[in-house]
Amino acid sequence: MSVYVHPQGLCEAPNVGSGTRIWAFAHVLPQAVIGADCNICDHVFVEYDVVVGDRVTVKCGVQLWDGIRLEDDVFVGPNATFTNDRMPRSKVYPVEFLKTIVRRGASIGANATILPGLTIGERSLVAAGSVVTRDVPARVLVRGSPARPVSFLDADLVETAACGAAVAPYELLPGVRLCRLQTSRPGTLVATEILRDIPFAPRRFTAVEEPPDGGLIGDHARIRCSQFVVLVSGAATALVDNACERFAVRLSAPGDAILLPPGTWGGQLDFAPGSVLGIFASEDDDEADYVRDYGAFLARSGR
Amino acid sequence: MSVYVHPQGLCEAPNVGSGTRIWAFAHVLPQAVIGADCNICDHVFVEYDVVVGDRVTVKCGVQLWDGIRLEDDVFVGPNATFTNDRMPRSKVYPVEFLKTIVRRGASIGANATILPGLTIGERSLVAAGSVVTRDVPARVLVRGSPARPVSFLDADLVETAACGAAVAPYELLPGVRLCRLQTSRPGTLVATEILRDIPFAPRRFTAVEEPPDGGLIGDHARIRCSQFVVLVSGAATALVDNACERFAVRLSAPGDAILLPPGTWGGQLDFAPGSVLGIFASEDDDEADYVRDYGAFLARSGR
Amino acid sequence: MSVYVHPQGLCEAPNVGSGTRIWAFAHVLPQAVIGADCNICDHVFVEYDVVVGDRVTVKCGVQLWDGIRLEDDVFVGPNATFTNDRMPRSKVYPVEFLKTIVRRGASIGANATILPGLTIGERSLVAAGSVVTRDVPARVLVRGSPARPVSFLDADLVETAACGAAVAPYELLPGVRLCRLQTSRPGTLVATEILRDIPFAPRRFTAVEEPPDGGLIGDHARIRCSQFVVLVSGAATALVDNACERFAVRLSAPGDAILLPPGTWGGQLDFAPGSVLGIFASEDDDEADYVRDYGAFLARSGR
Amino acid sequence: MSVYVHPQGLCEAPNVGSGTRIWAFAHVLPQAVIGADCNICDHVFVEYDVVVGDRVTVKCGVQLWDGIRLEDDVFVGPNATFTNDRMPRSKVYPVEFLKTIVRRGASIGANATILPGLTIGERSLVAAGSVVTRDVPARVLVRGSPARPVSFLDADLVETAACGAAVAPYELLPGVRLCRLQTSRPGTLVATEILRDIPFAPRRFTAVEEPPDGGLIGDHARIRCSQFVVLVSGAATALVDNACERFAVRLSAPGDAILLPPGTWGGQLDFAPGSVLGIFASEDDDEADYVRDYGAFLARSGR
Amino acid sequence: MSVYVHPQGLCEAPNVGSGTRIWAFAHVLPQAVIGADCNICDHVFVEYDVVVGDRVTVKCGVQLWDGIRLEDDVFVGPNATFTNDRMPRSKVYPVEFLKTIVRRGASIGANATILPGLTIGERSLVAAGSVVTRDVPARVLVRGSPARPVSFLDADLVETAACGAAVAPYELLPGVRLCRLQTSRPGTLVATEILRDIPFAPRRFTAVEEPPDGGLIGDHARIRCSQFVVLVSGAATALVDNACERFAVRLSAPGDAILLPPGTWGGQLDFAPGSVLGIFASEDDDEADYVRDYGAFLARSGR
Amino acid sequence: MSVYVHPQGLCEAPNVGSGTRIWAFAHVLPQAVIGADCNICDHVFVEYDVVVGDRVTVKCGVQLWDGIRLEDDVFVGPNATFTNDRMPRSKVYPVEFLKTIVRRGASIGANATILPGLTIGERSLVAAGSVVTRDVPARVLVRGSPARPVSFLDADLVETAACGAAVAPYELLPGVRLCRLQTSRPGTLVATEILRDIPFAPRRFTAVEEPPDGGLIGDHARIRCSQFVVLVSGAATALVDNACERFAVRLSAPGDAILLPPGTWGGQLDFAPGSVLGIFASEDDDEADYVRDYGAFLARSGR
Repeated sequence: MSVYVHPQGLCEAPNVGSGTRIWAFAHVLPQAVIGADCNICDHVFVEYDVVVGDRVTVKCGVQLWDGIRLEDDVFVGPNATFTNDRMPRSKVYPVEFLKTIVRRGASIGANATILPGLTIGERSLVAAGSVVTRDVPARVLVRGSPARPVSFLDADLVETAACGAAVAPYELLPGVRLCRLQTSRPGTLVATEILRDIPFAPRRFTAVEEPPDGGLIGDHARIRCSQFVVLVSGAATALVDNACERFAVRLSAPGDAILLPPGTWGGQLDFAPGSVLGIFASEDDDEADYVRDYGAFLARSGR
Repeated sequence: MSVYVHPQGLCEAPNVGSGTRIWAFAHVLPQAVIGADCNICDHVFVEYDVVVGDRVTVKCGVQLWDGIRLEDDVFVGPNATFTNDRMPRSKVYPVEFLKTIVRRGASIGANATILPGLTIGERSLVAAGSVVTRDVPARVLVRGSPARPVSFLDADLVETAACGAAVAPYELLPGVRLCRLQTSRPGTLVATEILRDIPFAPRRFTAVEEPPDGGLIGDHARIRCSQFVVLVSGAATALVDNACERFAVRLSAPGDAILLPPGTWGGQLDFAPGSVLGIFASEDDDEADYVRDYGAFLARSGR
Repeated sequence: MSVYVHPQGLCEAPNVGSGTRIWAFAHVLPQAVIGADCNICDHVFVEYDVVVGDRVTVKCGVQLWDGIRLEDDVFVGPNATFTNDRMPRSKVYPVEFLKTIVRRGASIGANATILPGLTIGERSLVAAGSVVTRDVPARVLVRGSPARPVSFLDADLVETAACGAAVAPYELLPGVRLCRLQTSRPGTLVATEILRDIPFAPRRFTAVEEPPDGGLIGDHARIRCSQFVVLVSGAATALVDNACERFAVRLSAPGDAILLPPGTWGGQLDFAPGSVLGIFASEDDDEADYVRDYGAFLARSGR
Repeated sequence: MSVYVHPQGLCEAPNVGSGTRIWAFAHVLPQAVIGADCNICDHVFVEYDVVVGDRVTVKCGVQLWDGIRLEDDVFVGPNATFTNDRMPRSKVYPVEFLKTIVRRGASIGANATILPGLTIGERSLVAAGSVVTRDVPARVLVRGSPARPVSFLDADLVETAACGAAVAPYELLPGVRLCRLQTSRPGTLVATEILRDIPFAPRRFTAVEEPPDGGLIGDHARIRCSQFVVLVSGAATALVDNACERFAVRLSAPGDAILLPPGTWGGQLDFAPGSVLGIFASEDDDEADYVRDYGAFLARSGR
Repeated sequence: MSVYVHPQGLCEAPNVGSGTRIWAFAHVLPQAVIGADCNICDHVFVEYDVVVGDRVTVKCGVQLWDGIRLEDDVFVGPNATFTNDRMPRSKVYPVEFLKTIVRRGASIGANATILPGLTIGERSLVAAGSVVTRDVPARVLVRGSPARPVSFLDADLVETAACGAAVAPYELLPGVRLCRLQTSRPGTLVATEILRDIPFAPRRFTAVEEPPDGGLIGDHARIRCSQFVVLVSGAATALVDNACERFAVRLSAPGDAILLPPGTWGGQLDFAPGSVLGIFASEDDDEADYVRDYGAFLARSGR
Repeated sequence: MSVYVHPQGLCEAPNVGSGTRIWAFAHVLPQAVIGADCNICDHVFVEYDVVVGDRVTVKCGVQLWDGIRLEDDVFVGPNATFTNDRMPRSKVYPVEFLKTIVRRGASIGANATILPGLTIGERSLVAAGSVVTRDVPARVLVRGSPARPVSFLDADLVETAACGAAVAPYELLPGVRLCRLQTSRPGTLVATEILRDIPFAPRRFTAVEEPPDGGLIGDHARIRCSQFVVLVSGAATALVDNACERFAVRLSAPGDAILLPPGTWGGQLDFAPGSVLGIFASEDDDEADYVRDYGAFLARSGR
């Protein structure tokens, strides 16, 4: 099974994988590299320094400029628009065009705009019509202008608000415990007996809020470190992902807490205004203990 | 007068109406159905399961995907982008693509994005660059990302604020009365003697505010039911449309009220923050008394 | 049993009722009239044009100026201060001093300040340290500077919030029904089928909010008129008082409603910011149908 | 040196200490107990069940009712007004009058109003004209209507804002350390390496905000427990008092922290809106480890 | 006509003016000085270092402490309470008591509290129950806890809002002009051609807002300096007083302006939130050009 | 060097400048005029009444409609979309299409939408994905939906906040002085001695705020007029441009001021909420003194 090029299509590149189809009025320049089983639709334009993986769909009206990289199984919606120059001026060229990397399995919605130099995370989804100005985390839905993370994908939602006044501690996943710390003294938001509530001696405490420009806190895995995440005020959604299963837990009352064992990928988003989370960690802050690439995380977990 | 296809255009469909022109680098697939006197501009792509009415304009760079329906006299601006899959993933297809219906006479602005499965109402207007995430009412302008109804189209604006402290009751249209109920007691927003101010014995009362996600209240006609709409607090714009004439009335003081006789199409939008409207109806709530399709409303009215 | 005057007290008035005691350093001027079984404590001063009922307590450090009237069973706390001139200037006297009337059974807290010309309602309570600038309704607690009504006295509190999502209609008192009207359409605050939900044909509708300067809405009884009070937005507390029993109902969800039969005293206070109440009345607005004096209301009811 | 009673004063009590003076038009009833070297000014009234310590000043126009207790060195300003009945009604008496205890060295400002049943803490100050509705902590200034704690008394103020971007850790008092934890990651309010920043292994963590009705958090000493108080967001003032010296530390940037060794009295007030404090404790929560009475705290410390 | 002392009154002072009456249970200490035609009511206490002018009224329950000065024609309402020590402690005395000066013709409302060391301005009025913590300007009403200036006394109110969109320039008083500068460009609040609109060459420009703790801006006269006061944003009330007549002008639209000729007393209060006033002055800032004492201002004007 | 047209491109216009390249699937209609050295990329469409200058880049997927004018050195990003009809309806044509003028050197970001009838100023930049609804000033970055000016381009940023409490006056450019007027009186925002601080006798004063719909104040040069711009409240950024150099000055404290000599181009944007600027001008308002076109300004300055 070889490459199909529509009679009105124009493919000047020799490096196109088997099973790939290039449709009418599409134009692929000579140096571009395109994988197998791709679908390059009508009116697509592919420049020189472009690498496209296998099973990628590029819908009509899309251009792939120098510096664009699409990994396997990426979907690019119609008229979605990439860029490679932050400050474009006619006839003025940067020394090197900024690279845009769309990770494996990501989808970019119709008519979205992607600013240059960004990475679009694995299996993430950019909502149609969004304007993406920052990196997109893996398996997260971003939306708006500018686009902000609004929910975790591929994750079941657990809502503590549905559990009534008392949240009985229970195991969501092996080693992942959910509980609600109780306190009734006025002015006390959270009270925890560390030895009773937290199954490790904490070596680090962090308090976080939503970053001023919106977005996701965390978005990484820890290798040896356990974490105990507790809602201090407001409400927020915490991800827990052990590479097999994934839950998004909506913490909605001060004291709602979740325990993340080592080897768990986590992150927090959708903070109500003024919300604060406290995070206890079993280890000091050591960059070597972090896995910041979701693909690498899956790989470590044997997936 | 037959179909014109530009020498560089590609029309594989036999079902194209007379007088329709298909321009350079446009591509129409075999099963598509296109009406008469249409204009299919350069770089347009039309897939298989597409039905286009008469006198439709599709400007450059637009794609009509499987499931798109454009009724007569629709205008689609350049690079406007349709979709047919809520959660696109490369090589993963839904059982059936979601349908998008663009009603008679609607216009979609340049570079707008239309999410899948929506209906764009008759003679409505989607502002250029908008991202449409919900159905668009008939004869309404929607704008923004996400797009929200911002004004009524084809309607003269009447502002009660221009009438000074006292609004003398007057007939805007046959049977459509506008008045301002007076009250001066502190804390009293509205006071109405029902038998004096309302020409029917109310059987139903509803209080409404702007829906949390913006938008239009009402947007339907009643067949036998009269309604008396009174501003309780804030400000809001009420539509009154008897199929012959149409007014948008800006209610701006508590007590501003408008009487809608049977057979009138109504709706309310552009609520100031915290606004409340009260609606008295002459009939119980009976789904059979509602006309929710604007075309059907015009048809009932013999137009 | 006659009047007791402490040896260091000074009573120049002949009109003092039997059983009344006047203590050390108190001074009663000749024309004052004081009832029976009163207690006029140390350091009290009573001017000429003063009338005090029976069983009244005037604690230390209080002055009763010309124009002050205390009905039976009134309590005046220590150092509470009356006034009788809105714009006092030395040696400048108004033609007539403003009258202050403290109704039967009212209590004025310690060190409160009462501006001139006001009526303090029957069995009301002025909190200690308050500054009273407006009339005080009967059986209401007022507090602060300026003092505002904060709760109904002698009334059991019924909270609709304690009833969960559904409030089954029930009879709180004979003829007094409590219910929660249901609606789930976005933007619809209240929807009521009048013939089903309201046991009378409404002749008048009023929408009310908290007056800009705080305070109590209503505070009167209707003789022949029934009323149906429904919460449109926010939260508020509604009084229902049939002269035998009294309840304060906390309406907390749009649609929470209470039916007041003829002969019921009502009023509303403690509005959450932005709250609106709708009131349907079975009669036109007729001043002859109102009873605005709580004592007269009790008398009409044979109490 | 014996008791002095002004010729126009009236002292019926035998239990008055030596050196005490009772002035004109003052009236002391027989069972009252008054200590030595007191000053009972003109127009004061003292009821039966009253106990006054030594060196107490009671200025003009004050009444001491049944149930009032003034410890040594108390000052009561002119026309300050006590109460002993929460719901006063004429001729209706509670089974027992509520007690008011004014602790050693406290001062009550002129014309303040004190509600019944409260304790006014040691060396506290009630601002003139305040209305006190809750207990007043020791050595705190309360003000307003209702009165709220606004500052610590007898304490030097240390402002972290005056220290520039970096607060070098330093010892404020023996064992009391002040520092500013640094973090610059967006969204991270506080980051602390526990073993480096906190000189104990925490067994308890608490997050606190200002109580809804204002006021003071903490206000107690711990016997064996160390505490590490860190500002998470906003600003707040933390007291540190080792019975010898006292500082009020204004924490003004997230990460500002103060270490309290065992045997330190602490408390926090004057929270900016939305502020949160985190408190790490070296011990579990054990009521036996708390000293909640400031006098007892001083006594334990040998003062 | 000589001094009258009630048989139960106690006057130990020889310096009391003719026509003054001292009533029952009042007590005047030896060194106090009291003017003529005063009225010292029951239960008043006057300490040593006190000077009271002529025609002063001191109502019941008031104490005049060491350091209190009441000028002629002052009125002190019942139970109003003065102080002379900012931080009172029993048996601890300041080196010198703080002085309180109540200027000619001022009135202090019933039960008000006056903190020590303040001046209460000429013919000002302290509302009943207020707590005064700062100096009170002349001829101003202050109210609340803490008391703030709320209106000008003895001044007619002129409201520009009542003049419609255009305010024709007119002369309010000789040389005092009122006008509304017109502008319609979006973003432009005020536009003035200086040579056309302002009858002097400005040498100084000041922009003012309401001080953070409320209160009055200005409150002085200029001797040689003219001023042109223009509302930049919001709303505010400006006083103009030429010693003969006095107006309070409510400026309510940007561009509302008032010209104050030399020799005019001015001040501004009651700023709507966020309001800004601009003031052009014909002279540099020279302390010698200011008259800050209202009495001195009247004297200069020959009144 | 002549025009290059790709074999799959379609150029019907004779008026194309030398060195211009027209790429595959691009289509240029006969009457269009295109300058020299342009790059007309794949899938571009150029209608009849279009004029394009020299050295212009039009990236893929763009249409240039009747009425579009692109001056020299313009860059149009991919899928950027122009319009020429405010209220498009199929088969309904305006008498004349609205003109869009993109000035010399401007860049329009990828996938931006430009509403009809606008001018995009010289060397301005429209951010990718923006929706432009109003004219874009020269050398300004606009962003968002609708697009608003967010910063000045080609201008160094000077921040007064970085200068500490005192800003020593200094010359930013010849004749352009920056200073901070000092005042410490509560309520006084700005105080300036005109003869000392401003080197001209002001003939005009203007106060400005941010226009309700966002955007830029000023944006013009004055020929003979000097201006003194002073921040009254809040914060704002002021441009100063003498045709040789350009600075954007962030004014951040009341009293921060900048002097603009004659012949300087100025403008202000990025107002913090509630900010007000005062502008003193040395001349009356005379339209003849304004230069409102940035190109004309440069030309006058000999550039």
